Amino acid sequence: MANDSATYKLILLRHGQSEWNEKNLFTGWVDVPLTEKGMAEAKRGGELIKDNDLAPDVLHTSLLRRAINTANIALDAADRHWIPVKRSWRLNERHYGDLQGKDKTQVRDQYGEDQFMVWRRSYDTPPPKLDDSSEFSQADDPRYADVADLPRTECLKDVLERFLPYWEEQIVPDLKAGKTVLVAAHGNSLRALVKHLDDISDEDIAGLNIPTGIPLYFELDQNLKPVTIGGTYLDPEAAAESIKAVANQGKK
Amino acid sequence: MANDSATYKLILLRHGQSEWNEKNLFTGWVDVPLTEKGMAEAKRGGELIKDNDLAPDVLHTSLLRRAINTANIALDAADRHWIPVKRSWRLNERHYGDLQGKDKTQVRDQYGEDQFMVWRRSYDTPPPKLDDSSEFSQADDPRYADVADLPRTECLKDVLERFLPYWEEQIVPDLKAGKTVLVAAHGNSLRALVKHLDDISDEDIAGLNIPTGIPLYFELDQNLKPVTIGGTYLDPEAAAESIKAVANQGKK
Repeated sequence: MANDSATYKLILLRHGQSEWNEKNLFTGWVDVPLTEKGMAEAKRGGELIKDNDLAPDVLHTSLLRRAINTANIALDAADRHWIPVKRSWRLNERHYGDLQGKDKTQVRDQYGEDQFMVWRRSYDTPPPKLDDSSEFSQADDPRYADVADLPRTECLKDVLERFLPYWEEQIVPDLKAGKTVLVAAHGNSLRALVKHLDDISDEDIAGLNIPTGIPLYFELDQNLKPVTIGGTYLDPEAAAESIKAVANQGKK
Repeated sequence: MANDSATYKLILLRHGQSEWNEKNLFTGWVDVPLTEKGMAEAKRGGELIKDNDLAPDVLHTSLLRRAINTANIALDAADRHWIPVKRSWRLNERHYGDLQGKDKTQVRDQYGEDQFMVWRRSYDTPPPKLDDSSEFSQADDPRYADVADLPRTECLKDVLERFLPYWEEQIVPDLKAGKTVLVAAHGNSLRALVKHLDDISDEDIAGLNIPTGIPLYFELDQNLKPVTIGGTYLDPEAAAESIKAVANQGKK
């Protein structure tokens, strides 16, 4: 793995399979647990981090247990369970609005392929808002008590806008301090980050899928730009397989 | 559970059974994993915390995976996996010096009951130092790279002395901010804390055993003194059983 002291080290890790990934439901901010497969993915992710000598010095996670537990399992496997942890709602998955809790295939059948793809992949069109009375709402969740303007739905643009302040204020200072940073988060919060790093256009970001549980390593130059565009998956073959599977979600 | 707004809430949680608890070996700073039973204890501990409406606002752990993973599992079970985490070597188990990695029964047989009990329970006599070349040494462990005067052995008095600055500087401010504090740590670091809270004498502390995996709740008054001496185990019957078992460790 190319490296010298003048570059920064960033590892992205999307959580392993969750119960709702397996059930093909829109999840968003609903706090579902990992499956056994998801836990195994997390462990394998940690082993890959260790095998590549990428010992993280600090962990940043979302407030959702699928990312938190993925990080816990991976760091234990990498013998780095003891590093400092910072958590923020700004690393959460995209809030899927009224789609949270709904079956992806049913939504596709009900609203049609075009609308389905707009909700899933358009950069700036959010799904309808989730009502605060819904069982899938986070309006009364104590972990978000201090969040002003709590989202009720989000498009990827919204995710990028709420993620970037955290990147600038919390993650970049850790990188600039020479720390190897692990970010354990979600499909869309990590897509937002990669869009920012690689300067991907609003159109092209629709085609980017990040697989679960496979660490994605970015070496960043002094301007925080990737030395290798798109970064390097620590298991490139498994990543290619998984990207295909994600792209097929919602298809029959 | 007695409580009003003028008191502070502190929950102590000793890690669940580790592989070396099960094997009856002196563990100290050796970083052994939980057993399946230990993980189940941790989960039950979290359920007890939840059932007693004692939602922790912040977690303090040692740098050892048996305490870290106990906290991770317990907080997940209590739906508080997302709270902030602080870690410190000052919450570590007592460093058992040259006894680390040795069988408790063999040490008793080799050195006799009196010496065995001095090493296990005397307040101010540490075991012989562990040599840095030992496979059970932490002298080169990166997690302690910043620790000046890294211990090579400790008595309970040493533990209290290195724990108290952390108590004063990190835990007390959280309590005074009105946070419910969870401390996930070890038999001897928690004994040191309880000695301090309840003002237990150097002699009497020898008789105090803290069971694994059963949350011990302290309501503290404005002077940080326990409202109930000894605190309250959230499962008093299981605690009584377990205290008996701990006291029998090393006996044939």
